[in-house]
Amino acid sequence: MVIVLEQSITPDQAETLKKYLLERRIGARREKGEHYDVLVTADSEHAQVPREIAGLPGVRRIVPMTESFLLASRDFRSANTVIEQDGFRVGDTPVVLFSGPCAVEDADQMETCAAAVKAAGGAVLRGGSFKPRTSPYAFQGLGEEGLRLHREAANRHGLMMMSEVLDREDLDLVAGYADILQVGSRNMQNFPLLKALGRQAKPVMLKRGLASTREEFLLAAEYILMGGNGRVILCERGIRSFDPSLRNNLDLASVCLLKEMTHLPVVVDPSHATGTRSLVLPMARAAAAVGADGIMVEVHPAPENALSDGPQALRIEDLPVLARDLAAIAPLVGRTFGTTP
Amino acid sequence: MVIVLEQSITPDQAETLKKYLLERRIGARREKGEHYDVLVTADSEHAQVPREIAGLPGVRRIVPMTESFLLASRDFRSANTVIEQDGFRVGDTPVVLFSGPCAVEDADQMETCAAAVKAAGGAVLRGGSFKPRTSPYAFQGLGEEGLRLHREAANRHGLMMMSEVLDREDLDLVAGYADILQVGSRNMQNFPLLKALGRQAKPVMLKRGLASTREEFLLAAEYILMGGNGRVILCERGIRSFDPSLRNNLDLASVCLLKEMTHLPVVVDPSHATGTRSLVLPMARAAAAVGADGIMVEVHPAPENALSDGPQALRIEDLPVLARDLAAIAPLVGRTFGTTP
Amino acid sequence: MVIVLEQSITPDQAETLKKYLLERRIGARREKGEHYDVLVTADSEHAQVPREIAGLPGVRRIVPMTESFLLASRDFRSANTVIEQDGFRVGDTPVVLFSGPCAVEDADQMETCAAAVKAAGGAVLRGGSFKPRTSPYAFQGLGEEGLRLHREAANRHGLMMMSEVLDREDLDLVAGYADILQVGSRNMQNFPLLKALGRQAKPVMLKRGLASTREEFLLAAEYILMGGNGRVILCERGIRSFDPSLRNNLDLASVCLLKEMTHLPVVVDPSHATGTRSLVLPMARAAAAVGADGIMVEVHPAPENALSDGPQALRIEDLPVLARDLAAIAPLVGRTFGTTP
Amino acid sequence: MVIVLEQSITPDQAETLKKYLLERRIGARREKGEHYDVLVTADSEHAQVPREIAGLPGVRRIVPMTESFLLASRDFRSANTVIEQDGFRVGDTPVVLFSGPCAVEDADQMETCAAAVKAAGGAVLRGGSFKPRTSPYAFQGLGEEGLRLHREAANRHGLMMMSEVLDREDLDLVAGYADILQVGSRNMQNFPLLKALGRQAKPVMLKRGLASTREEFLLAAEYILMGGNGRVILCERGIRSFDPSLRNNLDLASVCLLKEMTHLPVVVDPSHATGTRSLVLPMARAAAAVGADGIMVEVHPAPENALSDGPQALRIEDLPVLARDLAAIAPLVGRTFGTTP
Repeated sequence: MVIVLEQSITPDQAETLKKYLLERRIGARREKGEHYDVLVTADSEHAQVPREIAGLPGVRRIVPMTESFLLASRDFRSANTVIEQDGFRVGDTPVVLFSGPCAVEDADQMETCAAAVKAAGGAVLRGGSFKPRTSPYAFQGLGEEGLRLHREAANRHGLMMMSEVLDREDLDLVAGYADILQVGSRNMQNFPLLKALGRQAKPVMLKRGLASTREEFLLAAEYILMGGNGRVILCERGIRSFDPSLRNNLDLASVCLLKEMTHLPVVVDPSHATGTRSLVLPMARAAAAVGADGIMVEVHPAPENALSDGPQALRIEDLPVLARDLAAIAPLVGRTFGTTP
Repeated sequence: MVIVLEQSITPDQAETLKKYLLERRIGARREKGEHYDVLVTADSEHAQVPREIAGLPGVRRIVPMTESFLLASRDFRSANTVIEQDGFRVGDTPVVLFSGPCAVEDADQMETCAAAVKAAGGAVLRGGSFKPRTSPYAFQGLGEEGLRLHREAANRHGLMMMSEVLDREDLDLVAGYADILQVGSRNMQNFPLLKALGRQAKPVMLKRGLASTREEFLLAAEYILMGGNGRVILCERGIRSFDPSLRNNLDLASVCLLKEMTHLPVVVDPSHATGTRSLVLPMARAAAAVGADGIMVEVHPAPENALSDGPQALRIEDLPVLARDLAAIAPLVGRTFGTTP
Repeated sequence: MVIVLEQSITPDQAETLKKYLLERRIGARREKGEHYDVLVTADSEHAQVPREIAGLPGVRRIVPMTESFLLASRDFRSANTVIEQDGFRVGDTPVVLFSGPCAVEDADQMETCAAAVKAAGGAVLRGGSFKPRTSPYAFQGLGEEGLRLHREAANRHGLMMMSEVLDREDLDLVAGYADILQVGSRNMQNFPLLKALGRQAKPVMLKRGLASTREEFLLAAEYILMGGNGRVILCERGIRSFDPSLRNNLDLASVCLLKEMTHLPVVVDPSHATGTRSLVLPMARAAAAVGADGIMVEVHPAPENALSDGPQALRIEDLPVLARDLAAIAPLVGRTFGTTP
Repeated sequence: MVIVLEQSITPDQAETLKKYLLERRIGARREKGEHYDVLVTADSEHAQVPREIAGLPGVRRIVPMTESFLLASRDFRSANTVIEQDGFRVGDTPVVLFSGPCAVEDADQMETCAAAVKAAGGAVLRGGSFKPRTSPYAFQGLGEEGLRLHREAANRHGLMMMSEVLDREDLDLVAGYADILQVGSRNMQNFPLLKALGRQAKPVMLKRGLASTREEFLLAAEYILMGGNGRVILCERGIRSFDPSLRNNLDLASVCLLKEMTHLPVVVDPSHATGTRSLVLPMARAAAAVGADGIMVEVHPAPENALSDGPQALRIEDLPVLARDLAAIAPLVGRTFGTTP
């Protein structure tokens, strides 16, 4: 439940309200908005939200059950949210490059990728150790061994480490290694996982579901924000269409629309969106041209031998080409990339 | 990994193969197919499947990483799978009625629903105590208290209890109360949950994802079958389309197609598919007319006050009408309903 | 332009309005609605609709440029429109069977089909002589020779003849033979053709476009109604989805929704919707079970040799089975079929 | 029908084949391919293609009824097709700008637009005089008066004139004024119109249907090519998706895919694709970044007063911004724009 406060609420009124909630054992956290503050309360387990709260002085309204996203909206916060962690920043002027293999396979692969990502101006080393695979017969990831290899490669090259969490049972394990936690598109509406991510401290990259509307996407982000974790990075990675001749359909206009709707950063993943190597560089350029805050591409030292998604992985030698193109396009949209001033 | 055996494999060859696997600490379970048997091994955590297995005598092939469903296919088992539990049967001649409220709210509601479901010839009392809700501000379910109310109502009326599991952390709790575990469409590709369901003993109703192909749907079922739990009920509940004037699009031809592709029972949920009360009875009739193994409808004593999905809930007095229609249509497709002989 | 009149408009006011329009050379036709009448004017070629009309006494409003359908709506006419022609009726209590081959091929084929359709209780013999084919290398139809063969077979068996018109240049030719004119889904928004159909006298079957919303579908019907031809039969024939394992997705809930939105009859075509013979009978039963006003199925004496769409054509011996099923289901929804009383 | 010839066919064999066809009154035109030539014959009105042709010496095969596009394929012609008309070229190194209002309204509007398009480096002045409108109550276009105003404005500024044809009855009229004929997405499968366009001499811009696959799109182009008109420009203009918060979904990866599949030029229309002014410039940049051969944007001197599609029209002052961005991005993909060398 979110209680929207009047701009004019007095400290006394706020105090009364807090006491009222405490008596009913409802914990509450105050979040500052641009035009008004809100009280975010713990998940109500009461079937009926205590409607008398709406009548207390200083309360404008309670966000009703069917309401759309609020904490994620531009209306609540008009300035872009810049997410920082140990020097890493996304949502600010520089376009951020996220790259690495689809799945962590071995130390050599991670070392080669990490070196290439760093050389190309990348900031984040991605790589999956717990893989969501459509088929139970496909490679499911190395598990903790993969996390360890991933961490070591990231450390050696001064990169952030981003890894996917499949459900809340794995959360502590993955969060023990990674700097940024990724939620895949199949899990965009795994609500227990979203709630758990809201209660921990690391930034989260949330990927849009294959057939999710923008509103559902932002409501999924709201689950995390509501729990107290404001560091959510949105990721467009293609939606399902009727034409089987391409894996997904990268909804690039959505980047612009999302940035009108929300203050959160928006990253684009052209690798999963297209599933086809020859389309990744063009679509990465296009993503930069519409103003994405970051670009995420998969890379592999030997895509033909990759244990997962080889056909969409860039080759090592493609990364400098991408870097050059991003550096050329970024200034057109008021951004920078790499050594661009 | 699945190892497909030659029809002609000798006991000696089978023994050699088992020893070979044991030495490599790969557990294996033999499943009988109609034309050939298979060895289903534990989830390989090896990046590379030991390909020399394919060369052992008596082995026809190893199901490669990208292969489609196998245990779920009609090719593996041509006869319909009939799922039984304490006298309940689905997949057999009688059409099975699953009904109850969207969310468990209180004891009165459950009592009224259970009595009505029983009177209408229903076999299963559905109801959610852990609700997956698009908005974090919507009612999230009563949790264990709901499970208890649900169990009591089911017991009083001799109905099976079916309840949704949101992730593997809740699994033991829900399985401690329910007879049938439901996986919602947003969780159809929650792979850790599917694997956990494969390792437990209760029947599972798996709902098709909003934008999942039939192949992806059957691969999700395969995750459960592969774990050793063969009792999976598939549920068509509407897919996403481009026309916002209706919540989802109920893919009824899919019932027939699925029954050609798989031996598992297929149930239809016209309540979630349409989201609109006036469309539920017509679409339930249509589902019976295409040969669904079961029909699942939501019912509520007072839909206008429901905490979840009220607009799609049937009223108590609609259930006998539904029962009459099912009884009339079932014989046309070689089925029975209720007291139909 | 449609001018909505006040219920209270006096004959004098109506006269003044007519004179006003005549002076500006705008022809107008009065149509009676249930609660109010409207003046339907000829297509305005004026960029700016003369807004002063809205100020004349007796005028409630002018339908603005972006407004939705009006003549097609249940709001304008609450009673079902029954379309009659020479004893044929659709939209009334009996469910109507439309059947015949996809394409007219030769006299024998038409004779066999016509006899079978009549025997099964069918009322309309369908068959294309001008075929819209995705590939230019596919059979394009026999043209006028096909119309002649079609007419003769229909006459011999006392059936109505329905044939497709591809554009307005063919309209007079096809209308010279057929009783009912069909507009295919690819032509649902061929606006010059729709306008021309509005100016002629025969009933029109309008098929829903592959990716058309219900609103667009009814606006296409409105084009015909606005021209003065009120005899439009709507046809649901499947919409496009993301799953390539089935040709189209038959939107059966749409039949119920359309019948809430409009007074026009709604027919279902399970042959084009599924593209697969084994699915046609089940989906035809389902269409009857949701209350369709008619069922249209393709039939062919030798589907394996058909020049067009053979895989979806029923065999001759399937028609009596369909007839038996329709006769059993119709009474459940307050309808009749064949000799059902 | 297309008859694929052996590379090794001798003049004598070719002569025999021609005589054979002439005796059966089948006209044929030879088209040179890169690896083999083909004979394109007039639309067969024979139900059965004379299969004995396939047995004649020098004939490799006959394109069977269900085959996909051939003349449009990269396999038939590997070099890009450059379409020229009076100094205008598309498909070559320069990116071409097509711009103008949605609908021609009056002389002033056309003059303002034409001057702005020319100043921005545009080559083609677009504008509709026959408008396909979803609602019959929307402005339908000025007809011939619009064509005249359009022609005069284009002439005054040395621009090509492009206008839409709605059906074959209007073709001669529109072709009497315009340099390039446009086929709208609703008409992409208006086969009589496509055939008529194949028999006339002007270039055709063919827009992709709202729910058409790439294969269907190229088969529609094939209809025009087969008639003898090889000058077809393809246009991506957005496809339908499940999210109603944006009009269409611009499928930019499709530009790259189409250019792999076909030798025809591909233009992108971000105005219709998004329906929203603020998204047009970003998506135009993105289109240039993926390598589109041209960009088509709508512009209007006063979008708020436009009779059609005002919300998506750029303002006059947006065109120089677009020109600057295109000039910056074009060199990245080996192209030029405007005065770029």
